[in-house]
Formats: sequence, C-alpha cells, structure tokens
Amino acid sequence: MLAIALVYLLIICHTSDNHSESQAPVLSHSQQVFTNIMNRKSVRHYTQQAVSKAQIDTLLRAAMAAPTAVNRQPWAFIVIDKVDVLKALAEQLPYAKMIDKAPVCIIVCGDLNKTFKSDGAVDYWAFDCSAATENMLLQAEAMGLGAVWTALYPENDRVQLVKKMLNIPDHLMPMAAVPIGYPSGHERPKNKYKVENVFYNQF
Amino acid sequence: MLAIALVYLLIICHTSDNHSESQAPVLSHSQQVFTNIMNRKSVRHYTQQAVSKAQIDTLLRAAMAAPTAVNRQPWAFIVIDKVDVLKALAEQLPYAKMIDKAPVCIIVCGDLNKTFKSDGAVDYWAFDCSAATENMLLQAEAMGLGAVWTALYPENDRVQLVKKMLNIPDHLMPMAAVPIGYPSGHERPKNKYKVENVFYNQF
Repeated sequence: MLAIALVYLLIICHTSDNHSESQAPVLSHSQQVFTNIMNRKSVRHYTQQAVSKAQIDTLLRAAMAAPTAVNRQPWAFIVIDKVDVLKALAEQLPYAKMIDKAPVCIIVCGDLNKTFKSDGAVDYWAFDCSAATENMLLQAEAMGLGAVWTALYPENDRVQLVKKMLNIPDHLMPMAAVPIGYPSGHERPKNKYKVENVFYNQF
Repeated sequence: MLAIALVYLLIICHTSDNHSESQAPVLSHSQQVFTNIMNRKSVRHYTQQAVSKAQIDTLLRAAMAAPTAVNRQPWAFIVIDKVDVLKALAEQLPYAKMIDKAPVCIIVCGDLNKTFKSDGAVDYWAFDCSAATENMLLQAEAMGLGAVWTALYPENDRVQLVKKMLNIPDHLMPMAAVPIGYPSGHERPKNKYKVENVFYNQF
C-alpha cells in the first residue's frame, strides 16, 4: 500500500514538473498506463496550436476500440474542424463555450439502429459510447492534448439543437461534444480516490 | 495515415507474439497508452493465479480517476474475492458464469444519492460508472490481467438478484460485474475501426 503510494507520488511529481519524455525515468507499461489514467483531466483551455489529422485518426481508433455490448459498435463520430462550425456550436451550447477556443471538437453519437437492446431493457449504446469517449480522453492525455466531455444526451434541448445544426439523422443520438486542443496548462487532475467507496463481498 | 498503420501493425505483431516487457522495443508514452487501448479485450477465461490486494487497489484507483459529471463521483465498488460468493454470483447470473473461474470480481455500482441530475433529464451516474469501468478494464490489461464487463443494469432481474445477494441498499445500482484474473490466452482483441463511422463537420 505504502509502496503504491510512493510510486504514485513519484509519478505525479515527475509528470507535473517535467513534460519532456526524453528525461523521464523508465516506467513499466503498467505504470505508463496508470500514470496516464491518473493524469487525465477535463481541459477547457487550449493554446492555438493545431491538432493534426494523424492525431485525430489515432483518437478515433482509440474510441472505436472500446468494449461494446454484443459487439454492435453502435457509434458514429463527427469531427468538427471548421472554424465557423466550431463557433456556431459554442454559441448554441451554453455549457460548452470553450468549443470555439479548441481547434477540433469530436461529437460522439450513439447509433440507435445498431445498438444492442435486450427484452424489456433500455438500449446499451450509451454505455458503449461512454467507454469510447473515455478511450478518446485517455489517448488525448497520452498525446499531450487536452479534452473534456461535455454532455449533449441526456439533455434533450442540446440534442435537438446539435442534430439540426449538423444535419444528424434520427437514428443517431449525439451524446458528447469533446473539444480537443493543446492545453494551456490551467487544469490539474483531481484526486478522487476514496477508500469509503470500496466494500468487500457485501455492502 | 500509412505511417500510423505501420506503427500500429508493428505494435500488434509485437504484443501478440511476445509478452516479455524486457524484450519490448522502447515505445513512447503515447504509444504505450494506445497499444494498451487497442490490446484490451473481453477476457472470459482465466488461469488459477491469484490477483493481489495491491493489484485490486490499483484497479480501484484507476476506476475512481474517471471523469464524473459535476465531480459528483456517484459510484461504489464491491470487491468479491470469497470463493463461495463468486460461486453464488456465477450460479445466479446466466451471462456471467465465468465469474466463479475468476479469483476476483468487482461490482461497479452507481450511487443514486450522489449522481448529478439536471432539470428534466435522466441521471448521469451511468456515464460516470461506464468511464470508471473502462478505466478498470484498461488498467487490468496493462497489468497483464484480463477482465470483462458483464452487464447488470439495465437488466432489472439481474439488478434485483445481485442487490439481494450482496445486501446492496436501494440508493446503489449495480451496473457491471467485472470478473478479473490472469488470462488463459484464449482471447484476442477485435479490430473495430471503421472509416464509415467518421464524418466531418456535418453528417
């Protein structure tokens, strides 16, 4: 327990002070992944540096590698990289005004035609799309980018607005708008670990 | 594009043939995280090797680092590591019979008292808990473990059964049962990338 805490402290101290990979201590694969998960944060402030097509492709590949119920892959991704569209989105979405400061925004949509739906239960697309969004956020962090999950679904007014603006058909449900850019350095990760959230073998 | 495909191919070929970290080529932090995301798979077959308390602690820390709407952290985790409880769960859950072959199973629960809920919208706990579950699955992969997301919520019969069995109070909603163990090597990651899922600036 103490060993884990020390390793984690070492990782955190290192990564917050020094972003140069060449000077990084050698971390195991497991430590690299853990550090990245712990360092992911909601980034709402970006520099003007562009995000490349190759970076966007990598983010989309990460997203589509998410687990999906009965392998239905009920998702679609709309990449917004035109300034006028980013600006229009920011103007219309009160909680996502940072979108026009980001060079790119990816809209994660659930596909209601593809989703797994069991007898009597709700659709599974929102779980699948949440995992896909988290993969994208983690890969953004790993590439030195910053991103934030801003909710569309389940807010019906935002959903209708974005569907109309981007010509999204009825079978697609826009769930999250994820602006992505190089972080300006304002945000730090939160420590959300609470031992009282953990139980053993029964509540 | 071609460069990305080649790097990815190299990564996949390497990791499927060679699990020894000491012989691995030096990958950047970004490549380590990407490889891990692409290598994550649903693992339903385990060896008898135990999972340590330290490993479980790391998995829970990864889970609680997930993004959560308005930072409500609406989750609780029930770690099942007693053989009789694992066996009872496997007997009761038709789609999760592999639970009694795993040394540990983590039940991810949403907390209905803590969840963010906006006017007129459904709760946000399921998004937050999905991201937490994905973090846990990715960290398991990184540590050489295998895991699989088996759904409880939104299947009401499974939810009621697990609540009763584990003495879970009304404000907690068991969403996923995640058995975890060392993979026996049966499963391979799926390639789910589809360029037709990607759109630019409008549908």
